[in-house]
Amino acid sequence: MIIERLRPNVNSGRYPVKRAVGQSVDVIADIFADGHDKIAAVLLCRPVGAPDWFETGMTPSVNDRWHARFVCTELHDYEFTVEAWIDHFATWQDGARKKHDAEQDIAVELQVAARFASQAAARATGAAADALNDAARRLASSSPADERYALAVSDELANLMRAHPDRGLATRCEQVLRITVDRPKALFSAWYELFPRSADTGGHGTFKDCHAHLPRLAAMGFDVLYLPPIHPIGETNRKGKNNAPRAGYGDPGSPWAIGSKHGGHKAVNPDLGTLRDFEELVARARKAGIEIAIDIAFQCSPDHPYVKDHPEWFLRLPDGTIKFAENPPKKYEDIVPFDFECENWRELWEELKSVFMFWARKGVRIFRVDNPHTKPFGFWEWVIAEVRRAFPDTLYLAEAFTRPKVMHRLAKVGFSQSYTYYTWRNTKHELKQYVTELTRSDIREFFRPNFWPNTPDILPEYLQYGGRAAFIVRFVLAATLSSNYGIYGPAYELCVNAALPEREEYLDSEKYQVQSWRLDQRGSLAEIITLVNRARRDNPALHNTWNVEFLQTDNDYLLAYVRRSDDNANMVMVVANLDPHHAQSGWITTPREHLGIHAPQSFLVHDLISDDKFVWQSDRNYVALDPSKMPVHLFRVSRRLRRETDFDYYL
Amino acid sequence: MIIERLRPNVNSGRYPVKRAVGQSVDVIADIFADGHDKIAAVLLCRPVGAPDWFETGMTPSVNDRWHARFVCTELHDYEFTVEAWIDHFATWQDGARKKHDAEQDIAVELQVAARFASQAAARATGAAADALNDAARRLASSSPADERYALAVSDELANLMRAHPDRGLATRCEQVLRITVDRPKALFSAWYELFPRSADTGGHGTFKDCHAHLPRLAAMGFDVLYLPPIHPIGETNRKGKNNAPRAGYGDPGSPWAIGSKHGGHKAVNPDLGTLRDFEELVARARKAGIEIAIDIAFQCSPDHPYVKDHPEWFLRLPDGTIKFAENPPKKYEDIVPFDFECENWRELWEELKSVFMFWARKGVRIFRVDNPHTKPFGFWEWVIAEVRRAFPDTLYLAEAFTRPKVMHRLAKVGFSQSYTYYTWRNTKHELKQYVTELTRSDIREFFRPNFWPNTPDILPEYLQYGGRAAFIVRFVLAATLSSNYGIYGPAYELCVNAALPEREEYLDSEKYQVQSWRLDQRGSLAEIITLVNRARRDNPALHNTWNVEFLQTDNDYLLAYVRRSDDNANMVMVVANLDPHHAQSGWITTPREHLGIHAPQSFLVHDLISDDKFVWQSDRNYVALDPSKMPVHLFRVSRRLRRETDFDYYL
Repeated sequence: MIIERLRPNVNSGRYPVKRAVGQSVDVIADIFADGHDKIAAVLLCRPVGAPDWFETGMTPSVNDRWHARFVCTELHDYEFTVEAWIDHFATWQDGARKKHDAEQDIAVELQVAARFASQAAARATGAAADALNDAARRLASSSPADERYALAVSDELANLMRAHPDRGLATRCEQVLRITVDRPKALFSAWYELFPRSADTGGHGTFKDCHAHLPRLAAMGFDVLYLPPIHPIGETNRKGKNNAPRAGYGDPGSPWAIGSKHGGHKAVNPDLGTLRDFEELVARARKAGIEIAIDIAFQCSPDHPYVKDHPEWFLRLPDGTIKFAENPPKKYEDIVPFDFECENWRELWEELKSVFMFWARKGVRIFRVDNPHTKPFGFWEWVIAEVRRAFPDTLYLAEAFTRPKVMHRLAKVGFSQSYTYYTWRNTKHELKQYVTELTRSDIREFFRPNFWPNTPDILPEYLQYGGRAAFIVRFVLAATLSSNYGIYGPAYELCVNAALPEREEYLDSEKYQVQSWRLDQRGSLAEIITLVNRARRDNPALHNTWNVEFLQTDNDYLLAYVRRSDDNANMVMVVANLDPHHAQSGWITTPREHLGIHAPQSFLVHDLISDDKFVWQSDRNYVALDPSKMPVHLFRVSRRLRRETDFDYYL
Repeated sequence: MIIERLRPNVNSGRYPVKRAVGQSVDVIADIFADGHDKIAAVLLCRPVGAPDWFETGMTPSVNDRWHARFVCTELHDYEFTVEAWIDHFATWQDGARKKHDAEQDIAVELQVAARFASQAAARATGAAADALNDAARRLASSSPADERYALAVSDELANLMRAHPDRGLATRCEQVLRITVDRPKALFSAWYELFPRSADTGGHGTFKDCHAHLPRLAAMGFDVLYLPPIHPIGETNRKGKNNAPRAGYGDPGSPWAIGSKHGGHKAVNPDLGTLRDFEELVARARKAGIEIAIDIAFQCSPDHPYVKDHPEWFLRLPDGTIKFAENPPKKYEDIVPFDFECENWRELWEELKSVFMFWARKGVRIFRVDNPHTKPFGFWEWVIAEVRRAFPDTLYLAEAFTRPKVMHRLAKVGFSQSYTYYTWRNTKHELKQYVTELTRSDIREFFRPNFWPNTPDILPEYLQYGGRAAFIVRFVLAATLSSNYGIYGPAYELCVNAALPEREEYLDSEKYQVQSWRLDQRGSLAEIITLVNRARRDNPALHNTWNVEFLQTDNDYLLAYVRRSDDNANMVMVVANLDPHHAQSGWITTPREHLGIHAPQSFLVHDLISDDKFVWQSDRNYVALDPSKMPVHLFRVSRRLRRETDFDYYL
């Protein structure tokens, strides 16, 4: 008996598969044996540590592939495997039926069946044992062969036999695969990034100034408020506006240059307030339905207390100076990296773990981790497992914009969500290809995308030159192609598109200066954002990322896709004009029967942004989108059930 | 440092990859680390048991994928793995170049380089050590920075450093993967199946009668003569003509009903001659360049000595009788199967192994194994390994026409070649899809196809109704799509197409009666077979199966493909009209630059069957094939090298 290719798995089981509470796991395995014998198989699953396996019967599909499904109901890691055995009685039934149909004599075969039944009786108890013994007696009796045959191939006997299988020679798959289960927000979240120092519209903002933003963000439908580093900022080599090598008077510096005389990773920048102020913000946000996510950037300003207290944690150059961070020819003189492989690495790693633990104890449960790809994979695997052991509800977003395999590996070692290449995927072909890779390949088992159309570091060309329509399209695509998405908020709401010349970086970037955002401007996207987040909340089809189905369009500037909830009850369709400069129109193929719509019927599509409604009448429907008005449709698709009166379609 | 997805591998290394002597192994691995450091990697390979690894530098391609190649030169199993490390000096050079280009000061960096060089010197000996020490001194000297920079980034220093790497922290891949190496015939062979009892044109043929066939088969280009079972045939329940349940007087029975009072699997049917006669046939065949393959069918007639001597090796029914073979509703009353899981299975398995050993000692090195899928995989894995240990040049062809995963598993556990679904793949789409699966997916690493257009069991519909053209096309496709192929010979040569009604079985099948083949008939395919086998022999492009590239055609009845030798020096193109009833014509896309032909040039295609020559002038060329004349082109493609005079094309 061969059981192989048990899946889902990640690197043959070296890493766990990821799920959120309430998500199901579709287990598949190739199961076969030599010869033509019938097989029975069960899926075994349990929360890790539970004494007993929970069993679910598996079903064969084509090509010796068997499947079964279970749901992860608890915030606890799970494990699963598969067991299979030869079902001798089912094999017997199959042969007996064929022989009977060919009018062959099966007298001896009925004796064999009687033996099977009495063996099963010995494994059964109570009424089942009685029934099986009775069947065995009748099969071996001298009743007419036809009567005995009818009993032997009856469903009743088949069910009894199936319930008392001989598993003495069952084969258990060698692999037991693990599943990391996160809370639902790992799968469905809307992030808003805000520099707290810009929370005021006048001077240097504070945690207290953030309070005023909470009701607005909650009304807009965001549920994660992500703050760039909140720690004291170094003074040595502090950067000035637009990354100038020298800070001007009053320049606040980059928040990623962490640490000063005011403290390091466990302190807050006094300009933002006190630790207590921060805790109050966390609590108020939670009341508003918003979680505060903080930035974990494991690097130091030269003024960080660690540099003085633990010089051995940093690399030194031959001239005795500590090596600052660089990515030649780029220099980050305001930052010194840790040496994760230093002799004292255990002490360093423990200290960094204590940073997570410190903030988790302050109520933070979501960490956006800066540049994890420049630190060892082994460190992340260790530290995330350690912190999750104490705080199973913590989530980790990997800010790694790097090579695919490195991003994948970070997800494998434990990050709950990942930044993606969405930021640069603009054309229909790119988007289809990339989303298909993320949602239809094995990558989906461990890599949870979080789509960001912009970040404080990245203002893509498409947004620089596409005007307001570009901002709308990229927002709606992010929010409806991925169940997790985020925006670098104020700059996005206001469609800020001023960049450094020939760069994808913001002019006057907030990374190096305080901004005074006037958010109640004409042209703000706040209303559209609100409508889209409401659509996300109200439509289960948008609560996970795997269900994207692209539709054919006859115009390459029109991207169209549907998403359906697992139970198929809810369906959303998006049609976007990717050309921010010109009106585009064309035909969208909407294969009705495939989409669960009774083919001769029309169906209603209701735009949840414009509130327009259209009755679509065919498997191909015409759409025209003018970017100067609204470049995208976000439709809820209404399907009515078949009714008795629908029969006239068939006349 | 991560090394993953080391390949080729079969089931993560559980089974070996297959190669023939002289074949290369293209090793690929994903290798990457956190951060931006440069990486160096080597492939390690050796014959299993050799004390030292042979090292080959690996080269990165896209997406963190590294590759290297080695050749299996000995008839011995090999193993390989990969080792990788951070190349700190290459990382340094890359950074230094970028800084230099950005006109940054690199004085301190040059001290770092000096340290690298002196560390490498300590790992080197002789002249290399001197050169590295010298470089270290000069890099640390007070010479002008430009001079020292030039030395630091010189290829000379890079090569010296690369030759003396610091592998103290190198990472060795956890997996060591195995390769089973067979002799070349595993990869390239032409089989001819002949019932020796039909070797005479009059009565019951004998081994001696086979002698007369050898020169003819050798001239036709076959190098394996496969004989169905040569053992004594049982008399109990012997089958008559056309599988009649009772044999008529003088009916010889099915050779697969093995064993009688004359002996079993280690005896020969006295009607064929003596053991000595068989050995003489093996020797004579070998002189003619032909190997005798015998049939290993592990099953017995009820008269087999095993049945009496080892009743415990067989399954019994409740009425005490031994269970005969069946595949309901089909009955094989002349055959009883072994019970491979009987209590005495060790004794049974040893006995069956001794059957292989017996015939190997008689000079047989190729075994065609009957219905291996009805015996345990574990038995085959064990017995093939055992016999190969004693006779590493033995080859095993699995006659399993069953579900894909079962066929694959048999190949994984040790079969050298496998029957395939080619027998039923007729249309252009089917053939492209199937050959692509066999040659472009991981299946190729363990499953060596052997294409048979017919067997004594199978006369496909296409041959029944397609006339001579069908036989020609299916033969040429088998012989040129797969480097291993075979025909059930006389019936194929003579285009025998009489089948049982609505079955794919031969009328008057040779399985149940002696045939008297008159092979020198008008219409025989002997001449075409000879030409095709000669083309196979003369064109290295046809010596393996992985190099098939299909060409676009605008007519679905035209199948076209090219095959190129590994060194690209030899190219063959086949164009076949799959419609045996009508002439078909159309345009074949032959992308010249892709095929290595200088695009403005014409090129010559030489039909090795008809001897016609055509000068093709474009990337699309017209072909017309009339099945009543010749339904296929087998072209050798001539490409001339670019010459100086070709430059006028560019004027």
